[in-house]
Amino acid sequence: MTLSLYSDEHYMREALKQARYALAEEEIPIGAVVVLERQIIARAYNQTEKLRDVTAHAEMLALTAAANYVGNKYLSDCTLYVTIEPCVMCAGASAWAQVRRVVYGAHEEKRGFRRYGNLLHPKTELATGILATESAELMQQFFAQKRK
Amino acid sequence: MTLSLYSDEHYMREALKQARYALAEEEIPIGAVVVLERQIIARAYNQTEKLRDVTAHAEMLALTAAANYVGNKYLSDCTLYVTIEPCVMCAGASAWAQVRRVVYGAHEEKRGFRRYGNLLHPKTELATGILATESAELMQQFFAQKRK
Repeated sequence: MTLSLYSDEHYMREALKQARYALAEEEIPIGAVVVLERQIIARAYNQTEKLRDVTAHAEMLALTAAANYVGNKYLSDCTLYVTIEPCVMCAGASAWAQVRRVVYGAHEEKRGFRRYGNLLHPKTELATGILATESAELMQQFFAQKRK
Repeated sequence: MTLSLYSDEHYMREALKQARYALAEEEIPIGAVVVLERQIIARAYNQTEKLRDVTAHAEMLALTAAANYVGNKYLSDCTLYVTIEPCVMCAGASAWAQVRRVVYGAHEEKRGFRRYGNLLHPKTELATGILATESAELMQQFFAQKRK
């Protein structure tokens, strides 16, 4: 039981909750949480429309909130969970923060960072495909609604 | 005279002023301004130390301030001036904002975005080397002080 409580899937479900808040506010539904020593220290969802600010991606807001929480711009003991593969901007931010692990749900072929090589910090571990289907489905739902 | 008043060099001097504010506050001395229709609509300098936030690069703060000013997350009529070649994160942010032009001073071989290819928006024009010496000298001054 304790294993599943602190699993990547558990934290990704929390990131998915954030993504659903974004969907409810007609934002591109991407959510993120930052975890330190099993504890969620930051939660955020994409707010680029509400804030009219391209930098307000879920990951950016979560990293800033996490840095505020720990009182340090380096997050080298933290894991960033995000429902969709981060873009170049967010990958770059995680690199500056020296995040210990980045875990994402679904790949993003077009906007994701991985097509540009490994933009993460050399010490950052990467895990992918956690709740990928649920993460991708939220995106498909959003863009299907948009097209209506 | 009017030509030099609205030249890239003129705006880069304003970005350099911002970089000097950063230096005075013991921040890595990088400054940025955003220009719309010849007018400076945002000025910012690197504040990663003060804010303990890796996302608080000069370019990010300037892009957010500019978006607030125009009331639109897209800055497709704006030019971003920055004293040093942007990093991956900041190049990515300028791409999302669809900035019309990016103008920077000195190259940054290690941390600059260009080693990863063209991360800017396909419509973004790039100009480099404007007041490169002054921009680079500020950085050298900072790191020389640090080593003391």
